[in-house]
Amino acid sequence: METSPVRGMRDFLPEEAKFRDEVIQKIKDCFERFGFMPLETPAIERWEILAAKKAGGSEILKETYSFKDKGGRKVGLRYDLTVPLARVIANNPNLPLPFKRYQIQPVWRYGDVARGRLRQFLQCDVDIVGSESMLADAEVISCASFTLKEIGIKDFLIRINNRKILSSLVRRAGIRKEKVLDVLRTVDKLDKIGEEGVREELEKKIGKKADDVMEIVSYKGKEVLEEIGKKLEGWKEGIVGIEELEKLGSYLEMMGVKNFVFDMSLARGLDYYTGPIFEIEVGEKIGSIAGGGRYDELIGIFSGRNLPATGISLGIERIVEILKPKVKLKKSVVKVYVAYIGNVLDYVLKVVMLLRETGMKCDFDVKGRSLSKQLEYASKMEIPFVVIIGEKEKNEECVKIRDMATGREEMVKFSELGKWMERI
Amino acid sequence: METSPVRGMRDFLPEEAKFRDEVIQKIKDCFERFGFMPLETPAIERWEILAAKKAGGSEILKETYSFKDKGGRKVGLRYDLTVPLARVIANNPNLPLPFKRYQIQPVWRYGDVARGRLRQFLQCDVDIVGSESMLADAEVISCASFTLKEIGIKDFLIRINNRKILSSLVRRAGIRKEKVLDVLRTVDKLDKIGEEGVREELEKKIGKKADDVMEIVSYKGKEVLEEIGKKLEGWKEGIVGIEELEKLGSYLEMMGVKNFVFDMSLARGLDYYTGPIFEIEVGEKIGSIAGGGRYDELIGIFSGRNLPATGISLGIERIVEILKPKVKLKKSVVKVYVAYIGNVLDYVLKVVMLLRETGMKCDFDVKGRSLSKQLEYASKMEIPFVVIIGEKEKNEECVKIRDMATGREEMVKFSELGKWMERI
Repeated sequence: METSPVRGMRDFLPEEAKFRDEVIQKIKDCFERFGFMPLETPAIERWEILAAKKAGGSEILKETYSFKDKGGRKVGLRYDLTVPLARVIANNPNLPLPFKRYQIQPVWRYGDVARGRLRQFLQCDVDIVGSESMLADAEVISCASFTLKEIGIKDFLIRINNRKILSSLVRRAGIRKEKVLDVLRTVDKLDKIGEEGVREELEKKIGKKADDVMEIVSYKGKEVLEEIGKKLEGWKEGIVGIEELEKLGSYLEMMGVKNFVFDMSLARGLDYYTGPIFEIEVGEKIGSIAGGGRYDELIGIFSGRNLPATGISLGIERIVEILKPKVKLKKSVVKVYVAYIGNVLDYVLKVVMLLRETGMKCDFDVKGRSLSKQLEYASKMEIPFVVIIGEKEKNEECVKIRDMATGREEMVKFSELGKWMERI
Repeated sequence: METSPVRGMRDFLPEEAKFRDEVIQKIKDCFERFGFMPLETPAIERWEILAAKKAGGSEILKETYSFKDKGGRKVGLRYDLTVPLARVIANNPNLPLPFKRYQIQPVWRYGDVARGRLRQFLQCDVDIVGSESMLADAEVISCASFTLKEIGIKDFLIRINNRKILSSLVRRAGIRKEKVLDVLRTVDKLDKIGEEGVREELEKKIGKKADDVMEIVSYKGKEVLEEIGKKLEGWKEGIVGIEELEKLGSYLEMMGVKNFVFDMSLARGLDYYTGPIFEIEVGEKIGSIAGGGRYDELIGIFSGRNLPATGISLGIERIVEILKPKVKLKKSVVKVYVAYIGNVLDYVLKVVMLLRETGMKCDFDVKGRSLSKQLEYASKMEIPFVVIIGEKEKNEECVKIRDMATGREEMVKFSELGKWMERI
């Protein structure tokens, strides 16, 4: 029988699962230092929620797992954590604002496996609901930046754009309002299909105006806002976007976040963004490891009452891939392995349970192996200490402890095991 | 638009999500003290895996979410964590044995919502693969027992049975081998439909022999094995089962686990069990909070090579419901809220980032609220300390700190914030 995971999905075996969990714990700690609290939502959402107009949009729906449940309801697996958050906010109108939540859960997208994309992947999101201030955008960006540094990723660039600016620039190039999102979805493919690919797709969609759009996306840098501002004279929405990015930039500087640029080629694929959008990138090979933006109209779609909101999502799969080569994965979490020989099981279990009760990660043989096989196993699993028990040790109420690194052995009384543990 | 979660599923808002996470962290720590390492598998499995003969069985498949993915593959959402584990073992034949893994992930079952059953719920499993010794069964049971005590559930009963004994008893009552599992599935409904319900269903299936089966399930107690042993004279499989439970019981006693009984009314609903089965129960109202057993043939179904295995699963949803009334949920994780007034944002952000960098969970206003509103918010969120910054504090490079419990205030220099943090 075929026993590999479903195509595009992965099993994480213990060594890697343990490392992932360590990274996630650090991420949670960082998120909480920024005052975010956790939220959990179910994997399955009503289809109307996922497919709502101005939610994720048509591109993402093409990749969304959907089906009818046994009650005949059309449902789907969530493709992100932002739409479920917006639903929760709409469903709980009395939550205290600003609502700062983090959420670390898998999402599902039926993407192109050949490009190394997983069809189930973990997202780590922080979002702030209820503030229209650029301080909120700066807060989520600096939280992501802070978190990446804490987990050991120091070298990255934060790219920032604004849907208001992009939209005005695109409209200024003569594109109708209804067509703007479609054009942006094509621009978003720059990383995937390259400049030539995007130009071709744009030409199909908007003909010669593709040139103007391609010019727009070439604006990049910290000092580019003034120049774009001049171009957008008279385009009110765009000017608001410029002001937003100016503020956002100054707040980031105040927070000590300096490694950002404004980059007009950043479009983001989802429909719900209405203001600043951002991505964090580590070199060309790996690309983006975080992305997000402001979505002031998404909650209103569900509740009828708009609430400003902004957030960012860390892509844990790529982050772990970056970190993994830098660490030695742990074969085992066990600190002490209790090996034994002879009719001593009662005493062995007493020792094992004592060690566990006092907080020690401790294992022993449940296979009835010989002493030498037990020692071999402990060594293979890189367990630092082995407690050895034979009938002599049992009768004298003591244990022999071997330090596996040095090979040194010492005898410790059962009554003094607590002290020994404190020492190591 | 309807914004509640899909029927039978739940959102966990921050206060509750935080508490759940704290419980889960404690559970993980306990599992690791027993030497288990984490494993993660995807939510989606091939249908052939979930529906394999002698895997979960026909009852559970009725409740299993299944659909075709966009590539036309028939797949389903996992209904437990045991079948995915067995698949992983089959798919990775070189894993070192015994393989001790824990797995804490959601599972999906389209169950009866009216009975308070969730359709997505978290399972916390520990399993040992590669040992046929009853020590392995004792290890997983004592791990569950230890974990429950550590998280604050002290009053529970471990019910133990053995599919080998049950099967022999049922066959001794004149039931054909092929019919045994079907009878056991009915017996498993004792909690749900009561004794009368089970008797009726059995009568439909096996007529008068229902009386014999109902007699069997009345055997309960620590001393019951001898009596059953006499009944099973000549039934080899059943005698093996008796010997297994005798050993299991003695190992549990050695591990200090005393609160167990042998209980012939315990059947467990899944098809894959082959030996000891167990459930942990806390009073009649709540019922079972953990369950598991030995499944020596499940891995063989997938790989062609049988490997003995046993495990237990904690039902976190019920566990959290038991614990919740005993604790005060946290409105916020934040320890220090920085409130401010005047043109001081640059200094505020400097203070905030310093606090966060040194490990403090710290929040500040991103909504532009008045100082009194900020203080109100901090008080409502039960944040213990508020740092207050105005222009005076900025100019003098200090902050005012209010202890919200006592109302006492003190001035602390910016350069001495580190020391202050150590103090609290």
